[in-house]
Amino acid sequence: MRRGPTGTMVLIGVGLVGTSVALAASRAGWRVHLRDRNTSHRLVAAGLGAGTVDDPDPAAVDLVVVAVPPDHCAPVIADALREFERATVTDVASVKGALTRQLLALVPPGLAARHVGSHPMAGSHRSGPAAADADLFVDRTWVVTPSEGADPDRVARVRDLALACGATVVAMTPDDHDRAVAAVSHLPHLASVLVASQLTELSPEQLGLAGQGLRDVTRIAGSDPALWVQILSANADAVRPRLHALRDGAERLLADLDDRERLTDALSGAVAGTRRIPGKHGRPGRAWADVVVEIPDAPGALARLFADVGATEVNVEDMRIEHDPVREVGSLALAIDAERAGELSDALEAAGWLVRPG
Amino acid sequence: MRRGPTGTMVLIGVGLVGTSVALAASRAGWRVHLRDRNTSHRLVAAGLGAGTVDDPDPAAVDLVVVAVPPDHCAPVIADALREFERATVTDVASVKGALTRQLLALVPPGLAARHVGSHPMAGSHRSGPAAADADLFVDRTWVVTPSEGADPDRVARVRDLALACGATVVAMTPDDHDRAVAAVSHLPHLASVLVASQLTELSPEQLGLAGQGLRDVTRIAGSDPALWVQILSANADAVRPRLHALRDGAERLLADLDDRERLTDALSGAVAGTRRIPGKHGRPGRAWADVVVEIPDAPGALARLFADVGATEVNVEDMRIEHDPVREVGSLALAIDAERAGELSDALEAAGWLVRPG
Repeated sequence: MRRGPTGTMVLIGVGLVGTSVALAASRAGWRVHLRDRNTSHRLVAAGLGAGTVDDPDPAAVDLVVVAVPPDHCAPVIADALREFERATVTDVASVKGALTRQLLALVPPGLAARHVGSHPMAGSHRSGPAAADADLFVDRTWVVTPSEGADPDRVARVRDLALACGATVVAMTPDDHDRAVAAVSHLPHLASVLVASQLTELSPEQLGLAGQGLRDVTRIAGSDPALWVQILSANADAVRPRLHALRDGAERLLADLDDRERLTDALSGAVAGTRRIPGKHGRPGRAWADVVVEIPDAPGALARLFADVGATEVNVEDMRIEHDPVREVGSLALAIDAERAGELSDALEAAGWLVRPG
Repeated sequence: MRRGPTGTMVLIGVGLVGTSVALAASRAGWRVHLRDRNTSHRLVAAGLGAGTVDDPDPAAVDLVVVAVPPDHCAPVIADALREFERATVTDVASVKGALTRQLLALVPPGLAARHVGSHPMAGSHRSGPAAADADLFVDRTWVVTPSEGADPDRVARVRDLALACGATVVAMTPDDHDRAVAAVSHLPHLASVLVASQLTELSPEQLGLAGQGLRDVTRIAGSDPALWVQILSANADAVRPRLHALRDGAERLLADLDDRERLTDALSGAVAGTRRIPGKHGRPGRAWADVVVEIPDAPGALARLFADVGATEVNVEDMRIEHDPVREVGSLALAIDAERAGELSDALEAAGWLVRPG
């Protein structure tokens, strides 16, 4: 969280994301005025401390955040640009290029210049203001997508809001953003949908064999169709080539099923793909180090080793057995956070284990 | 866990699954003899308490469990049938039909009749004996796949082992099993592979927008290609129609992208598919009940409500705002475990809230 410039904000649309923005902004010192067509939602958001339901003085408004469903976003932004004459207007919709074009069809360029789009990459399977969380955006990526020639001061104002919410800010053009989310969000969504769709034809006996893999792959296919139709339609141009590639990939796998070498290549390429995903919170994946412990040939030895490891409270991420064919002894390689490798080695040596660096 | 009949067991292949079976069986009272080509692995498994590395008296062996990689399974089963003349031989491979046919090519039907295949539906992203867990199979599904005309006593022996490991037992023919796992395990794996493959062409900036959805969908694509080539090749006949359907589904979605009504149908069909997945541990999804609380129009009211809910330690699974258009008040519906609805209602009423049944 960074305590940056604040001012008067109007937040339109107190759903989960909107209310979470309002909570975080209020905490950071913004004066937040809440708007929503639904009186109860507005009262709930205000009751949570997200802001006031009173109307602001239009001339005093510095920033408007539009957090309504994607289909309604452009006209609400247009209205806000007209009503709040000096305010910067941003939105939190998950597709930016189409929105920018829709807006330019509604208002003259001079007015649209006060709009700076953004997309906080956070959400929840819950919805509505009561599920909002002032910490929803902490350490998450928040993309700011200024159009060409955007006023740097207005871009900075939106960036400051994202920073006040605890997010990490990334700048991209609207179209670059849309191509990126087509690949990392909309394609996985459609793949999930394609797997989940096939479940409707299965028998309960077949579904009884479902494991965690199926649950993981199909989780996002359970999301609200009404919202996703809006997202996918708005981003159809960027989604289409991804879906083409998925179809072509399936076609290739059908041929590869009978060719072990090509199937291995396909599966190995996918492993390489998963390794490119950065660690949670947008940080690069953490580095692991191996601590290797020789295993004495004695009953209960490993149980004692694990007890000693457990006592250090160092989290073991993976482990594997290594074999010394000359001395005919085995050793256990413990993969742990590289920063704690020294600590674990020392503790295990102190407990009498034969430890060597990985 | 059920304490059933025990006896003398040989466990061949002390990987994660094999060692976990041996640990659970030893705990249940079986005398377990461990075999593995890798001396260190065998010693580690024995050191964990999974059994002994001593050779058994072949005539005393009641049950052999083969837990080697799929490609090596059939010849190891054939050898075990020859070496242990009265033993029932089972295996834990994840494809059953092809294995049964491979076995019949190696041994006469009279010998093969002592084999009863099985498939415990549990695993881990870790591997090797040191990561084994006696509780790996607790409340998980364990499929027993007797061939036609199998001896009921031998089927019962394998079922008893699964029960001793704490698993829930399901019986299926080998081919029914293979069709089921093609749909609920191998198809999701390939969909995950297809999404992960596309990540190799993305820029770090694009990958920086990755969220939990991408991580969930691609998690299983990170699994060991060497193992999955064996699984997919062995089950190619059942996987092929599923992959065809995935390709055709992608083709249809490409057309649906420009048609909101058809896109909504496709997404809604997928939601229906996800709802058919039984709850964890093979039990049907739990029943939720709503507890509805009226929201007073007072600052801090919701924060107090959540504090009171938190004090009951009842887990809130979902919540939504409901609006009473006549009285112009809102209320909050809390979805919780149906069995605890009465308790939560009482506690909130005692704390002064206006509660009504959902």
